[in-house]
Amino acid sequence: MNIDGKQAAADLRVKLTKEVESLKAERGITPGLTVVLVGDDPASQVYVRNKVKQTREVGMISDEIRLDEDTTEEALLATLAKLNNDENVHGILVQLPLPKHINEEKIIATIKPEKDVDGFHAMNSGRLLNGEKGALVPCTPQGCVILAKRHLGDDLSGKHAVIIGRSNIVGKPVSILFLQENCTVTIAHSRTQNLPSMCRQADILVAAVGRPEMVKADWVKPGATVIDVGINRIERDGKNKLVGDVDFDDVSAVAGGITPVPGGVGPMTIACLLKNTIEAAKIYG
Amino acid sequence: MNIDGKQAAADLRVKLTKEVESLKAERGITPGLTVVLVGDDPASQVYVRNKVKQTREVGMISDEIRLDEDTTEEALLATLAKLNNDENVHGILVQLPLPKHINEEKIIATIKPEKDVDGFHAMNSGRLLNGEKGALVPCTPQGCVILAKRHLGDDLSGKHAVIIGRSNIVGKPVSILFLQENCTVTIAHSRTQNLPSMCRQADILVAAVGRPEMVKADWVKPGATVIDVGINRIERDGKNKLVGDVDFDDVSAVAGGITPVPGGVGPMTIACLLKNTIEAAKIYG
Repeated sequence: MNIDGKQAAADLRVKLTKEVESLKAERGITPGLTVVLVGDDPASQVYVRNKVKQTREVGMISDEIRLDEDTTEEALLATLAKLNNDENVHGILVQLPLPKHINEEKIIATIKPEKDVDGFHAMNSGRLLNGEKGALVPCTPQGCVILAKRHLGDDLSGKHAVIIGRSNIVGKPVSILFLQENCTVTIAHSRTQNLPSMCRQADILVAAVGRPEMVKADWVKPGATVIDVGINRIERDGKNKLVGDVDFDDVSAVAGGITPVPGGVGPMTIACLLKNTIEAAKIYG
Repeated sequence: MNIDGKQAAADLRVKLTKEVESLKAERGITPGLTVVLVGDDPASQVYVRNKVKQTREVGMISDEIRLDEDTTEEALLATLAKLNNDENVHGILVQLPLPKHINEEKIIATIKPEKDVDGFHAMNSGRLLNGEKGALVPCTPQGCVILAKRHLGDDLSGKHAVIIGRSNIVGKPVSILFLQENCTVTIAHSRTQNLPSMCRQADILVAAVGRPEMVKADWVKPGATVIDVGINRIERDGKNKLVGDVDFDDVSAVAGGITPVPGGVGPMTIACLLKNTIEAAKIYG
């Protein structure tokens, strides 16, 4: 059974639209998200356009700051300082990757944690790890949990979640989130021995490695829920194609539920970005 | 085979003594640790006395601030503000637990992350999770990894570490540390299904749950390395006794290496506290 990320994202946006309305009505706050884009990478431009569009659709204020490819680190830091102090801006997102002459880690550390809607700042990672209030949690991992629950129901307690990949953006935070849902969590990666047999233990299998169609049917326990975070561009039969980290045709015969690529985790990421901005406005606005 | 935590801690202190000497000689810095103790809990007093003694033995400056049981939160916060600004203090440790009228989370959040030698501040948890530089890492988890390496050698890559327990103080940070060592990591807990069979997969088994002698021989793969973090006071044959979370007599027949209680992880915790203070002085001093 396909887990429909497009529909899940649409459902979430309906909920968020209502939350924005009541924030406006009850507290006079309109959540605002500012996206900062440096340079003119075409893929980043498409992403940013999508973010701006969806932000407006749920009734939020969307702003976009475009800076030249050769913008200095100092200039970008100055822009962020202004946004940090602007009380109408509840969320700040700097579109990654940045040009090579700019230190990404420094930029992320400069965004006020309370406005860091990507959830990449160490304060947010730490609040997540410690289960403290006020954490802004990375978007894609949130999307993974929502999709797993869409298929399995809200109680994931006792299920064994196996995560392949240990990146800061997906693997590590999604592990913490499934742990908070009372799952037993295994984090596997390139050094894991006998990876297929480790994956076969999973009730919930999350693939976040960036290797096209790596996960095969014999890696998956019959009936398991498979969440595919990969987005890989490959060429097949002379055509460009998007595929996940999971061999979809092979695995869908075995899995109880599986997210397709595209149309699975992807659409959830932007929806969760809006969710984070509303969260930031609610808590810190 | 017993993994001797007392000896490992003594070895570490020898190394630390040399580091303190070269810090003094090369940079004119003498690392300083200030322990703040509120109230007169007898167990806490013993701990604090030990910390002070060992801090001095490695050549560091040790200070102790004792506050009355009925000290207000404001007064404690003011004390911490002073210590945060004192450039001779590289490490601040507030002995837990605190009296009930004081909010522990607020106190921990007030200690400057760069002086938080317990490693409990969200900034340190986040730097640990993200693998960022400058993290001060909780002491007991560091001790666990040092003891595992003492038995297995420095390369833990590909080993399966199973952690029982998911506390902020041990379970979660020790999981991240073993992940950084390129282990496959499973975090198990009270909701885990078929816990014994999950544990039997472990090359390295860490028990940190606070349940006396819970882990039995048939939970352990022959030859596995067992790290016992538990310190439980029980009565047996009319006598008080300290036991771990592992049934030592039962498990030592099966394990390849095992830490005893007492004399295993315990002594490493204070040694790693000294290590953190030196680290803080080196990076931020």
